Amino acid sequence: MMTVTTVMKRLIPAVVMTVLAVGAAWAQDTKYDAYYYRRATLFDKLPIKSSDIVFLGNSLTDGAEWNELLDNRHIKNRGIVGDIVQGYIDRLDPILRGKPKKIFIMGGVNDISHDVDADSIARVTEKLIVMIKQGSPRTKIYLQSLLPFNNDVRMWKLLKNREYVVREANVLLEKVAARQGVTWVNLYPLMVDGDGKLKREYTNDGLHLMGEAYVVWRDMLKKYI
Amino acid sequence: MMTVTTVMKRLIPAVVMTVLAVGAAWAQDTKYDAYYYRRATLFDKLPIKSSDIVFLGNSLTDGAEWNELLDNRHIKNRGIVGDIVQGYIDRLDPILRGKPKKIFIMGGVNDISHDVDADSIARVTEKLIVMIKQGSPRTKIYLQSLLPFNNDVRMWKLLKNREYVVREANVLLEKVAARQGVTWVNLYPLMVDGDGKLKREYTNDGLHLMGEAYVVWRDMLKKYI
Repeated sequence: MMTVTTVMKRLIPAVVMTVLAVGAAWAQDTKYDAYYYRRATLFDKLPIKSSDIVFLGNSLTDGAEWNELLDNRHIKNRGIVGDIVQGYIDRLDPILRGKPKKIFIMGGVNDISHDVDADSIARVTEKLIVMIKQGSPRTKIYLQSLLPFNNDVRMWKLLKNREYVVREANVLLEKVAARQGVTWVNLYPLMVDGDGKLKREYTNDGLHLMGEAYVVWRDMLKKYI
Repeated sequence: MMTVTTVMKRLIPAVVMTVLAVGAAWAQDTKYDAYYYRRATLFDKLPIKSSDIVFLGNSLTDGAEWNELLDNRHIKNRGIVGDIVQGYIDRLDPILRGKPKKIFIMGGVNDISHDVDADSIARVTEKLIVMIKQGSPRTKIYLQSLLPFNNDVRMWKLLKNREYVVREANVLLEKVAARQGVTWVNLYPLMVDGDGKLKREYTNDGLHLMGEAYVVWRDMLKKYI
C-alpha cells in the first residue's frame, strides 16, 4: 500500500513533466509567427525523396515557383516568408528524413532585420550545414550568398544602414562554404548596382524580387541543378 | 510645309496618349499591393502548357505546394496572397495564352474583407469564368466554394460578423457553376464546425490553413485531377 508521501513523490515528476511539456508546446507555438507553423505543418505532410532538390529559405525562396523556373519536378520549395536560419534548423527533420539529392540554402536577411550580426549568421549557417551533413551525408549542399537590398525603394526600418552586414556576412559565408566543402553560389554580384544596392528594376519594395530577377537567379542555378 | 497649328494638332493626341499611358502605368502599379506585381511578373515569365492544371487563387492557394500534395507535376500554383477575383481577371492573359487543360478557381474571401457583398462576388466570378471560356474554350473549369473562417482564433476586423457572406456567396457561386456548366467543388462542409466556423484544428489564425487542412482539401480534389 502506498503512503500519501509515496503518491506525492510519484506524482511530482509527472506534474513537472506536464508543466514542461505544456511549456515546450507553448514555446513551440510562439517562437515563430503563425505562417511558419502553417508551412511547417504542411511540409510535415509532404515526403522528401532521395531524388529531390530542396530549396531551403525565406520569402525570397517562398515567393517563386522553382520547379517551373528550372523545369524540374524534383525541386521542392521549402521557403517560409520571414524565416531565420535557426528556423531552418528547427524544421530540418522532415527534409533530412528523405535524404534529398541536393539542398540549396538561402538565408540570413531576416536575421539581419532581427539585429543579428554577420558573425552570428555565419555561425548558425555553419551549424545548419553540419547538421545536414550529419543527418544526410550524401546530400550535396549549395550555400547561396545573401542578396543586397535597396532602402531607397521603400524603407525597411529594421534593415536601415545594414547593407554592410550583408557584405560582411557574404565574406564569412564563403569561408564557411570552403571550410565545409560545400558549393558557394554567389548571387550578390548579379543583383547589386554600382552603389551596393539591389538593382532598382529587380524589386518593387527594395527587398523582394520581381519576375525578371528570379530569371537571373534561375540562370545562375541552371548549372547546379 | 506644316504650319504651327498643324504641328500642334498632330502633337496634342500624342501628348494625350502619353498622359493616358503614364496614367495607366501608374494605376497598374497601385491597383494591387507590391506582392501582387512581384507574383504577376513572375507568372509572366512562366509559360503555361496545354497539359497544365492551373490553381488560380489567393493566399489559400499560394500557401500550399499543390504539385507535391497531388503528386502531379502539371499543377501550376497561381495563387497570390491577398488577391481578389478581379485580380485574377487582370492576370488571366499569360494563363489563357497556354490553353491549360484545367483551371481550379478559389477566391472571394479577400473581396469580403474589402466589404464586397455576395452578389458582387458571384458576378465577378461569373465574369472570370466567361472570360476563361472565351479565351480557352477547351479548358475544364472547377469552381471551388469559399471556406469558412473563425474569428474566435484571431479577430480579422475586416471579416467581423461576415460569416453569412461566405454562406450567401456559396449559394450563389453554386448557381453560377450550374449556369456556366462548370464543376462545383464544395469544400465548405469539409472545413466547417458545428457553429459555422472554420474548424479550430485546421487553422492557427482563423483564416489560413494548417497542413492537415490542406490534406483534407487535397483528398477532395483527387478525383478531379
